[in-house]
Amino acid sequence: MNTVVIVGTGNVALQLYTAMSNKEGVKIIQVIGRNKKKLTPFKNCPKTSTDYDNISDANIYIIAVNDDSISTVSQHFKNKSGLVVHTSGSMPLSVLPKSVRRGVFYPLQTISKDRNIDFSEVPICIEAEKSEDYALLRELASTISTQIQIMTSDQRKSVHLAAVFVNNFTNHLYHIGNEICNEAGVPFTILNQLVLETAKKATETPVLNAQTGPAVRNDKLTMKEHLVLLNNKDYRDIYSVLSNSIQKTHEKKL
Amino acid sequence: MNTVVIVGTGNVALQLYTAMSNKEGVKIIQVIGRNKKKLTPFKNCPKTSTDYDNISDANIYIIAVNDDSISTVSQHFKNKSGLVVHTSGSMPLSVLPKSVRRGVFYPLQTISKDRNIDFSEVPICIEAEKSEDYALLRELASTISTQIQIMTSDQRKSVHLAAVFVNNFTNHLYHIGNEICNEAGVPFTILNQLVLETAKKATETPVLNAQTGPAVRNDKLTMKEHLVLLNNKDYRDIYSVLSNSIQKTHEKKL
Repeated sequence: MNTVVIVGTGNVALQLYTAMSNKEGVKIIQVIGRNKKKLTPFKNCPKTSTDYDNISDANIYIIAVNDDSISTVSQHFKNKSGLVVHTSGSMPLSVLPKSVRRGVFYPLQTISKDRNIDFSEVPICIEAEKSEDYALLRELASTISTQIQIMTSDQRKSVHLAAVFVNNFTNHLYHIGNEICNEAGVPFTILNQLVLETAKKATETPVLNAQTGPAVRNDKLTMKEHLVLLNNKDYRDIYSVLSNSIQKTHEKKL
Repeated sequence: MNTVVIVGTGNVALQLYTAMSNKEGVKIIQVIGRNKKKLTPFKNCPKTSTDYDNISDANIYIIAVNDDSISTVSQHFKNKSGLVVHTSGSMPLSVLPKSVRRGVFYPLQTISKDRNIDFSEVPICIEAEKSEDYALLRELASTISTQIQIMTSDQRKSVHLAAVFVNNFTNHLYHIGNEICNEAGVPFTILNQLVLETAKKATETPVLNAQTGPAVRNDKLTMKEHLVLLNNKDYRDIYSVLSNSIQKTHEKKL
């Protein structure tokens, strides 16, 4: 049975806490956060604390705080013998102090507070410095997921960048689609099936072949009409750079 | 029982043919295409023809050809008494000749040849000029889908533009994510769950609230690092215009 202390009270901390609670092979013995009020959702944990001088001994410490705070917060674990991991996609393992057994436990998913994640298929990207620490992280990850992936800090940084494209930027395109529908007096829900099928297709067939639309067809008239329809300059810029990139990508392919 | 003639042999023609075959209340009596070879997938249809002078009489003619050809092809139906519809998102109803009973039957989905579409939840956007033609299109649409939406030509043009954002452009972002993963030696499949969850979230919660990532957090350091990581200028442009638009959108919200 691995004992775990979670540090942080944000979305990742809460979702990992929820996913690991009542799982065999892992016991969360403490949650630490600066803000007492934010510890409320963790009230079923045996111990919650706002005090870094009062950290329980555990096999693994999961530091699930903002990227900017990882370095500072992890200083409090210098005298601990357990494995100290952060959960960030973009920060290297080396942001943790050299003097601790350090690692990374990065769940590759978009995580919000109000939406429970089913972690069973979520890739957990792990990194460590010693083989026994890899084994320990693999053990921990397998309590919540079947998808475990060893990854270097550089690889994780690239995957995080790819995630910005397929998640953050895609979400903004959905927002623009939503605005266009609203202005036309049509509910955005009319695009639900298209949104879902586009995503599903990308996971099942090569995305390069799936490219359709006026840009790849070089349908200049439709593209011109679309730019006239868009009354927001930023959206016109987005339309132009994406259409341009689609055309160049498919010229190369031909 | 409504009789239907399909004109065209492309993806939309083939998928509508497949979806309507053996459905109660509709009978496809003929498929017309210029290219004999491309008529092969329709060989179970009672009649196929390459000859526009030999069009069977039907209740509905579905013209599922390229946008540019709709106007020319529809001239052949001037003497028919049935309803003549096209299937295009971006073309107005008025592209069809005034002298025919005209309408639009636009299935709002990304349609490829090699991927069978389950139309049951796909919105069929219909337009007509007479109430009895609306009734007829509703009857036809309901043989394959439960989602039927009346839409003007202007609304359909806007919805088609929105679809370019959520489908064509999103697919290109997937392609970029794929390239970044390949270069890092990580399989793109690692992003599958993220791609699916991002889409699912957009259909279930307000997309504006779902926005995460370095741009909305104004995490300048990560954004700078990401631009350094991207070695393709077009991808850097896409990164910049999207990040800029995300920031402006969320400034407005605050």
